[in-house]
Amino acid sequence: MNQDYIKPDNWSIIEEGFDTKNVKASESLFSIGNGAMGQRANFEEHYSGPTFQGSYIAGVYYPDKTRVGWWKNGYPQYFAKVLNAPNWIGINVNINGEALDLFKCTVKNYRRELNMQEGWLSRSFEATLQNNTEIKIETKRFLSLDIDELGAIKYSITPINGAAKISFEPYLDAGITNEDSNWDDAFWNITSISRDQDRAYIEAHTMKTNFHTCTFMQSRCYLNDKQLNLPFEALKTESKISFKYFMNVPKGQTFTIQKFGGYTVDRNHDKSELILEAQSTLHNAVEIGFNSLLECQKQAWAEIWDMADITIKGDVKAQQGIRFNIFQLNQTYLGTDARLNIGPKGFTGEKYGGSTYWDTEAYCIPFYMATKNQKVARKLLEYRYQHLDKAIENAEKLGFSNGAALFPMVTMNGEECHNEWEITFEEIHRNGAIAFAIFNYYRFTGDYSYIPEKGLEVLIAIARFWHQRATFSESQNGYVILGVTGPNEYENNVNNNWYTNYLAQWCINFAIEAIDKVKAEYNADYDRIINKTKLFNPEIENWKAVANNMYFPYSEKHRVYLQQDGFLDKELITVADLEKAQRPINQKWSWDRILRSPYIKQADVLQGFYFFEDHFGSDELERHFDFYEPYTVHESSLSPCVHSIQAAKLDRMDQAYQFYLRTSRLDLDDYNNEVHEGLHITSMAGTWMSIVEGFGGMRVKNNTLSFDPKIPEQWDAYSFKVNFRNQILKVLVSQNETNFELEGKSDLQILVKDKLIQISPNNTVKI
Amino acid sequence: MNQDYIKPDNWSIIEEGFDTKNVKASESLFSIGNGAMGQRANFEEHYSGPTFQGSYIAGVYYPDKTRVGWWKNGYPQYFAKVLNAPNWIGINVNINGEALDLFKCTVKNYRRELNMQEGWLSRSFEATLQNNTEIKIETKRFLSLDIDELGAIKYSITPINGAAKISFEPYLDAGITNEDSNWDDAFWNITSISRDQDRAYIEAHTMKTNFHTCTFMQSRCYLNDKQLNLPFEALKTESKISFKYFMNVPKGQTFTIQKFGGYTVDRNHDKSELILEAQSTLHNAVEIGFNSLLECQKQAWAEIWDMADITIKGDVKAQQGIRFNIFQLNQTYLGTDARLNIGPKGFTGEKYGGSTYWDTEAYCIPFYMATKNQKVARKLLEYRYQHLDKAIENAEKLGFSNGAALFPMVTMNGEECHNEWEITFEEIHRNGAIAFAIFNYYRFTGDYSYIPEKGLEVLIAIARFWHQRATFSESQNGYVILGVTGPNEYENNVNNNWYTNYLAQWCINFAIEAIDKVKAEYNADYDRIINKTKLFNPEIENWKAVANNMYFPYSEKHRVYLQQDGFLDKELITVADLEKAQRPINQKWSWDRILRSPYIKQADVLQGFYFFEDHFGSDELERHFDFYEPYTVHESSLSPCVHSIQAAKLDRMDQAYQFYLRTSRLDLDDYNNEVHEGLHITSMAGTWMSIVEGFGGMRVKNNTLSFDPKIPEQWDAYSFKVNFRNQILKVLVSQNETNFELEGKSDLQILVKDKLIQISPNNTVKI
Repeated sequence: MNQDYIKPDNWSIIEEGFDTKNVKASESLFSIGNGAMGQRANFEEHYSGPTFQGSYIAGVYYPDKTRVGWWKNGYPQYFAKVLNAPNWIGINVNINGEALDLFKCTVKNYRRELNMQEGWLSRSFEATLQNNTEIKIETKRFLSLDIDELGAIKYSITPINGAAKISFEPYLDAGITNEDSNWDDAFWNITSISRDQDRAYIEAHTMKTNFHTCTFMQSRCYLNDKQLNLPFEALKTESKISFKYFMNVPKGQTFTIQKFGGYTVDRNHDKSELILEAQSTLHNAVEIGFNSLLECQKQAWAEIWDMADITIKGDVKAQQGIRFNIFQLNQTYLGTDARLNIGPKGFTGEKYGGSTYWDTEAYCIPFYMATKNQKVARKLLEYRYQHLDKAIENAEKLGFSNGAALFPMVTMNGEECHNEWEITFEEIHRNGAIAFAIFNYYRFTGDYSYIPEKGLEVLIAIARFWHQRATFSESQNGYVILGVTGPNEYENNVNNNWYTNYLAQWCINFAIEAIDKVKAEYNADYDRIINKTKLFNPEIENWKAVANNMYFPYSEKHRVYLQQDGFLDKELITVADLEKAQRPINQKWSWDRILRSPYIKQADVLQGFYFFEDHFGSDELERHFDFYEPYTVHESSLSPCVHSIQAAKLDRMDQAYQFYLRTSRLDLDDYNNEVHEGLHITSMAGTWMSIVEGFGGMRVKNNTLSFDPKIPEQWDAYSFKVNFRNQILKVLVSQNETNFELEGKSDLQILVKDKLIQISPNNTVKI
Repeated sequence: MNQDYIKPDNWSIIEEGFDTKNVKASESLFSIGNGAMGQRANFEEHYSGPTFQGSYIAGVYYPDKTRVGWWKNGYPQYFAKVLNAPNWIGINVNINGEALDLFKCTVKNYRRELNMQEGWLSRSFEATLQNNTEIKIETKRFLSLDIDELGAIKYSITPINGAAKISFEPYLDAGITNEDSNWDDAFWNITSISRDQDRAYIEAHTMKTNFHTCTFMQSRCYLNDKQLNLPFEALKTESKISFKYFMNVPKGQTFTIQKFGGYTVDRNHDKSELILEAQSTLHNAVEIGFNSLLECQKQAWAEIWDMADITIKGDVKAQQGIRFNIFQLNQTYLGTDARLNIGPKGFTGEKYGGSTYWDTEAYCIPFYMATKNQKVARKLLEYRYQHLDKAIENAEKLGFSNGAALFPMVTMNGEECHNEWEITFEEIHRNGAIAFAIFNYYRFTGDYSYIPEKGLEVLIAIARFWHQRATFSESQNGYVILGVTGPNEYENNVNNNWYTNYLAQWCINFAIEAIDKVKAEYNADYDRIINKTKLFNPEIENWKAVANNMYFPYSEKHRVYLQQDGFLDKELITVADLEKAQRPINQKWSWDRILRSPYIKQADVLQGFYFFEDHFGSDELERHFDFYEPYTVHESSLSPCVHSIQAAKLDRMDQAYQFYLRTSRLDLDDYNNEVHEGLHITSMAGTWMSIVEGFGGMRVKNNTLSFDPKIPEQWDAYSFKVNFRNQILKVLVSQNETNFELEGKSDLQILVKDKLIQISPNNTVKI
C-alpha cells in the first residue's frame, strides 16, 4: 500500500486536508465521467503546483507517429493516443487582486468528495491568500448522464474576514497539450473561437483523424442564491476565450458561479452544426438549472446502482473498494455506442493509448453482461465485428491470407497501435478471447442471433488465422504454434504456449460448430456468409486437421500441462523462496532475467482453466493451481481476480480473500505507486468477477444460472444482482445462509451447489 | 547487384560521367581515411543536390539519448553516436559571379578516382555554368598517413572559353549536424573561432563527452604552378570562418588553391594546446608542400600494400574487390591507438553507432594479425581489457555479481549502447568471441604474455559470467542457457543455442587452463590477478561443474547439433524452395514470421565449427554444413565468408567462389541497396579470410603455419602474404602449383596439405 489518505466510507471517496503531494493521485481517484466524456479531477481555478490536466472525449484519438528504437517490418506507423481535449472547466478566480491558487495560499478544512451514489465531485475549504484575504469555497461538479455532452459546475466563494472584490473568469482553452506524446506534435487544430451573448464556443478538430468538436460554456452568477445579471468583459486569444464577471462581495455573503460546458462532437452531430447543438444544449441546461440537473444525475445513478451495486457488510474498505470499481466502470462505458470501448485508463489518464485490449472480452464483458441489458454486451461484440476488415488487413500485413484475421493488441479504430514485436506480432491469444466472448455472450444471454448476424464471420476469420498460424511438426507429429507470447507477458517468443494452443483448437472447433448450426438453422445468413467469406468445405477439413492434431506440452511427471515447451528447464524457485528485495521483478530485474525465470505475471495456463473450467475436473484445476500459482508474481492488475475465483472454487477462502484485496483497492491504496497516471479501469471488472463468480460461484450450466455461494470470514454479508436473460435476481450471502430474491413476474430455476431450485418473484428463498 | 557504374580497374575505384543519383553512393565508395580521421567523398565546392555530409574523427562520439518505444529495465540511457565533425574541406568557388554547383551546371568528362595504391581521391571534369562560362576543374585530396591530423587538397580551375573572374573561399564550418540523431540535439559546442594571418581555427568540443578539437586550415594559391601572394578577405560567422581569394584568370591558364586542414584533438594533445598544435601542423604542411606530402602518402601506402596486398590474376573485378576491402580496412584502423576500434561503417557513415561489435574479435583480428605487426592485434585485445570494469558494471546492471563481465554488444567507450532486449541482454555469445580472440591471438602469434598481463582477468570475468548465466535443469540433467540470441539474429530468446552453449563451455575450460598455466609459469602475475579478482578454488570447481555438464541440443535422427531447442519443430522448407519474391526475408516478412521460420541470417552452428574446426571431423562439418546451409539466407554481410571458407574446406570450390563473390563486392556492386549509408567495413575482413583461410586453407596447427591451397577455376592465380610470428611468407597459388617465398633470414617450417615443408628465405618453393 502506497497511500492511505482516502477516508473509508460506504458511498464516497473522501480526501481531508490539503497536501500538494497528493494532488496528482487525487486527480485520478476523483475522476468523473459519463461514458461519453470524462475528466481528471483538476481544479477549476488555476493551480501552479504539479498537476496532470486531462479531459477526454470518448472515441477521439490522434494517430501519433510511432516511436521505436529499431524498426521491424509489420510495425504500424501510427499509435492511437488518448487525447487531452480543450478545457471547459476552467474558472480563473481573482480575489482582491490576487489570483486564487491553492499552491500559493494557506488552505484549511479542505475536503474533497466523490459521491459515487449520486455521481458528483465536490470540494470545500477555507483559504488565506497571500494578501491575507480569508475566503471559504465550495464547489460541485458533475458530467450529466442524461445529457451526455454536458457538464455543470457550481463554484461559491464567501469572504470571511471582510468584503472582497471577487472576479470569476470562466474560460474555454484549446491551447492544451498531451502528457503522453511521442514527438511533441500539436494534436488540435482550432478553427473558430466565437460567442453569442454570454455563450462561448471553440471549434477544433484533431489533426489527421479530423474529429470535429465544439467546446462550449455559459455561466450564471448568484449572490446568496439570488441570480445576478452582471455585465462581463469578454477576452479572446488565439486558443482561449473567457468572460470576466466581477463583484464586490460583502463579508459573509456568498458569490456563486454556475458554469455549464462540455463538447458537442461529430460522433453525434453533423460537423457543421456543432455550434448550433452547443447553443441548444446550453439553452436547455440554463433552463433546467444546476439543481434540477443534479437531481436528474442522482436519479440516473440510482438506476445504475439499483442493478449494479454490490453491498458488503462488516468491511467498509471492501465496500468502498467494490463500489469504486463499479462506479468507474460505469463512468467509462455505458454501452450506448458500438463505436466506443473500455480504455485501460478510461477517462482518467493517457498511458497505454488505444481504447481496446483483450481485457474487454476477457474481463469486462461478463460485468456488463450481468449488470446491464444484454444489448450492452452485444455492442461490445459488434465493436470487433466493425473492425473485422481491418483485422484481416492487419493479418495480411503479417503474411496471412484468405481472410484470416488478427485483431489488434491495442486499438482505437481497428488498426493495430502497439509496437513491440513480442506483443504486437506474437501475443496472438487475443484473437481467442474475441472468439470466446462470442461464445460467452451466447452462453449467458441465450441470444444466438448474434452469431448468424455477425459473429460467425469473426469466428471464421479467426479460425482461418489459427489454421495458418499453426504449422505441422514432424518431430512432434502434431500441429505446433511457434513464436508466441501468452497472457503471461514474462515469457516472449515461446513455442507452444498451452493456453494459446488450447484456445486455437477451441476456436476452430467452435467455428465449425457454429457453421454447422447456422447452416442448419439460419439459411439466409449462411448463404450470405459463405458468399462473403468464400468458405468451402475442404478448408474446414484442413482446420479440423489442425484442431484434431494440436500438440500440447505436458509433463507426465507433474501431470500438468506446461505453460510452454521447455518450462521445466527453468530454475523452479517459488515466489515464496524469492527474496522480497527482488520484487516486483518488473522493477528490479532486467528483461532477460525475467524471461528466463519461471515467474508468471498473470494467469496463463490458469486463464485457460478459467475460460474452460468445465473441460477439466476439480482435481486437475487443483493440480494446475498448485503448480503454477507458486510461481505467479501477480504483477498485472488482471492477475489476482482469476486466482481469487479459482481459490474460492477450491474452497481456499483465505487465499481467495487475499487475492480479492489485491484487486479491489489497487488504485485506492495505490499498490503499484502509479495512480497519478490514472486508474486501472479494465481490471475493475475482475474485482466484480471475484465476488460474483468467485465468492458467489455464479456460472451458467446448461442454460441454467448456477451458484455456489461462499463468504470470506471477514465479512458479515454481501449481496449482488444479476440480469440473467432479462430476469433480475438478487443474491444475498451471509455467514449462515444465502437469500435469493427475484424481480419481475415469472419464476426462475437456478442451481445452488448443483441442486435445482425454483424461485418465484417477490418471494425470498433462503438456503 | 544494384549498381554497376564503378569501372573495373586493378588499383582504382573509378566513376566516369556525372549522375546526380550516384552522388551519395559515391560519397561512400570514394571515402578516404587514415585511421585517425576519415571522411565521405563530399565535394569541396557547394553542392545543392542530395548529399550526405560526413567527416569523422576516430574516438569522438556523443552519447545521444536513447530512443525506444517501450523501456525495459537494464537498457542504457545513452547511445554513442558516430559524430559528424566540423567541415574543413569546404571551398566555395565563384566564377564570374556564379557559385560553382555541380547540381546546377552542365558537367562533362567527369571522372572520379580513388587511387587505392597511392591513397588519394581525385576529380576532373569540365563544367558549363548557367552564365555560360566553361571551365575545367581538377582536384586531388588525401588524408596523410604520416601526419594523421592533416589532410591536403589541391583544387585547380582553368577557364576554357574566355578569361574568368574566379574566387576561392576555403572555409571551416562547425555548424554541422548528424544524419543519425535520435532527438535532433546539437552535439558540438563551439568555443572559439580565430585566425592568425592566413591560418584559421575553430575550437569546438562535443557536449557531454567533452572531446576537444581544433579544426584548422591554411591555403596557398597558384597560377600555373607559380605561387601567388594574393590578398584575401576574412569572413566570420557564429560557426564558420573563411578567407576569400580572388583572381582574374586568363583563358587557358590554371588557377589553383592548395588547402591544408584537419583536426588537432585532445586524444593526442593537451586541450589547451590544440591551436598551437594546429599552427605547427600547418607550418609543417605548408613547408613540405602538397606534392611532397603526396609523395610521402604514396610511400606510406606502398608499405601497407607490400604486406597486405592480395593479387588476383585473370579477374579484374575480383582484384578490385579484394583491394577495396583491404584498402578500406586500412583506412579505418591502423592499430596505433588502443583506445580505437573498427566501427561497422568506419569513417564512411553514421549508421549503427558505436565503434565496436563482436565483428572485431571474430572477423577483424585475423586480418590485422596476419597483415601487420602482432602489436596491432594485441592493441585490439587491450581495447577490451580497458573496458573490463565497465563490462563488470554492465553485468551487475543485469543482475550478475562477483566480477562477472558482460561486454557490450555495441560500444564506443565500454558502455553498452544498444537497446533491443533480445540483442542487448541476450546476444551474449559476444562474450565468447572476446575470449576466443585471446586464444586466437596466442595460437597465431605464439605470444602468451598477453594472458598473464591482461587477458586472464578478462577470461576469469567471462567464465564467471557463463557460470552464473547457466542454470541447472533437472529435466535435462545438465546445465542449460536459457533466453539467448545466437549469431543468427533471426532467432530471439531461444533456449540452448548450441553455439552459445559450446562457447560457454569452451570459455570456462580455456579460463581454467590459463589459470593453471599462469599459476605455474607466471607467479607474480598470478598473485596479482588472484588478489584483484578474489578468485578461489571452490569457484573454479563450480565452473567445472557447469562446463562438464553442459547440455547440447542434438538430433539423433539427423546426427547434427541443433541450433537451439525446438529447431526441428519448424517447417523445414529450404531457401531453394522458398519463392524468390519472399526474399530478402528481412525486407519482406514481419519479424514473427522470420522468427518462426528455419531461416538463418548468418553462420550460427557453423560459426562454432569455424572457430573450433579442429574439434570436429570433416564428416561432421560436412553433415552440419549440409544441414544448415540450405536454410541460410545470408542476409548479414558476415555470413558468406564463413560459408566460403567451409565450402573450400569441403572441396566445393564452385560454392566457395559464389560465396566469395557475395562478400567481396558487396559495397562496390551495392548488393543490399544501401551503400549510400556507408560501407560495411568489418565484413571486409571476412573477404580477406575467404581468400587466405578459405582458398589458401591457412591454419595454425600446433604452432605451425599450415596451408591447403585451392583456386577457383575462374582465376589464373592469386597471392597473399602473411606475417607469421614476425616471419613474412608470400603464397602464390596458380591453377597448377603453389609457390611459397619467405622474407628475412631464418627458415620456416610450414605444413602444406599436412606435409611438413622447410622454406628458406629468398628461395621459392613450388608445390
